Amino acid sequence: MKKLRRSARLVDMTQHLLAHPHRLIPLTLFSEQYGAAKSSISEDLTIIKEAFESEGIGVLRTVAGAAGGVKFIPQTKEERAVFFMNELTAKLQNPERLLPGGYLYMSDILGDPSTLDKIGKLFATAFAEQEAEVVMTVETKGIPLAYATARYLNVPVVIVRRDNKVTEGSVVSINYVSGSSKRIQTMSLARRALAEASRVLIVDDFMKAGGTIRGMIDLLQEFKATVVGCGVFVEAADVAERLVDDYISLARLRDVDLKEKHIEIELGSYFTK
Amino acid sequence: MKKLRRSARLVDMTQHLLAHPHRLIPLTLFSEQYGAAKSSISEDLTIIKEAFESEGIGVLRTVAGAAGGVKFIPQTKEERAVFFMNELTAKLQNPERLLPGGYLYMSDILGDPSTLDKIGKLFATAFAEQEAEVVMTVETKGIPLAYATARYLNVPVVIVRRDNKVTEGSVVSINYVSGSSKRIQTMSLARRALAEASRVLIVDDFMKAGGTIRGMIDLLQEFKATVVGCGVFVEAADVAERLVDDYISLARLRDVDLKEKHIEIELGSYFTK
Repeated sequence: MKKLRRSARLVDMTQHLLAHPHRLIPLTLFSEQYGAAKSSISEDLTIIKEAFESEGIGVLRTVAGAAGGVKFIPQTKEERAVFFMNELTAKLQNPERLLPGGYLYMSDILGDPSTLDKIGKLFATAFAEQEAEVVMTVETKGIPLAYATARYLNVPVVIVRRDNKVTEGSVVSINYVSGSSKRIQTMSLARRALAEASRVLIVDDFMKAGGTIRGMIDLLQEFKATVVGCGVFVEAADVAERLVDDYISLARLRDVDLKEKHIEIELGSYFTK
Repeated sequence: MKKLRRSARLVDMTQHLLAHPHRLIPLTLFSEQYGAAKSSISEDLTIIKEAFESEGIGVLRTVAGAAGGVKFIPQTKEERAVFFMNELTAKLQNPERLLPGGYLYMSDILGDPSTLDKIGKLFATAFAEQEAEVVMTVETKGIPLAYATARYLNVPVVIVRRDNKVTEGSVVSINYVSGSSKRIQTMSLARRALAEASRVLIVDDFMKAGGTIRGMIDLLQEFKATVVGCGVFVEAADVAERLVDDYISLARLRDVDLKEKHIEIELGSYFTK
């Protein structure tokens, strides 16, 4: 046990809390680690709590009693979220992003760790109270988003494969109809990848009619799972029949004009509900 | 501009440095943000530097002069890395992980954000001085690893697809021979996904003969890129001909006995070089 001064404690506790979101950390852990009285640790936490809240990092929740401790809940404030998403939608409206079929090129945005981090924190803010035990997505483009979200919720990621060639023991596969292309496709998940009756948050990068997410929801029934939320980064507005009702989007693709090379994007349902 | 006290500054600066690794941050940014003299900020940084180093978080490098500032380099100490990887290899040796073909079930480990985070930090430590501009991997299982590494290096991720159905404008595809199965396969990358002459760090979850990584290296020639390093999480030891010479592994699969249900894993070349 080494004794640390308050200033060094503040640095290390900040780091520890940021690295362990949504976990109840007993005060004894800190007091033993730093050789400090619990009352000093409580004072440290008050300082950290105020700084986290005033700087928009998140919330420290203290739980009293013998089984008590402190829990860091990452939280993006509404005004910052709006500012960030407005910047991002402006970027997404660049006509060079237009791809055949009315899709948008987003690989650069979904490949940038600091952007992903902010999106993941936004999803973690939106679903903070849903007690998700796992974040699920389908390969490929949703994976970084799912991972960024899972980091802030501190839960594992489960990746559904788009084929049935998975060599991970017994596998559950379902066929689903892609809502936009109307083609029959397959998705699979190894039986051992998800415990029965898990609480699952579904995350994906893009949703048109919602066939892929519908497929994941149906697949999850085979695992007796509860879907506690669906978050999509961008949804298409112009959809005749939506296959999923309950979801939030961060941005909405209002209009795509391939001929005029025009893209119109607005803030998604997370901001307008 | 709001004035913050030292204690609050320490919390917020710690958070800011952790969120922006490998970036030179001018001291003026902090002094303006907190309404504090540069000398006070320097003292804050000395405290943070000591705490980061003694707690094994990383190194703060100060660059003097007008264009100077401070840079946070995440670093995992050797002894911690060995401790962590020994724990992980013990987990990996569980015979229930055996999959047909001598592969190991690792999706649970590669789905756990805090494990991924530690692996990513290890790769970022190993390749800290290579000045990678981008981390590349091939779908699917390498993606979370690549993203975890890229977060610590603060560079984007580029994902190579395993087919040529990529609808992202003009695409470069190559055929490659998977070293272990000897089958011809295709991988593709959109032209716009990677700037010419980039410095690329390749990351993947598993390497047998190295055909997939060899494929990525060949593909990168089409982009006039420089491969500044290759990091694989687990390599198979029992390989007749290795198609890649220059790489580091964190773990080595020494022996797999499907009949006796026995797996033997040791620390990889990163620890033994």
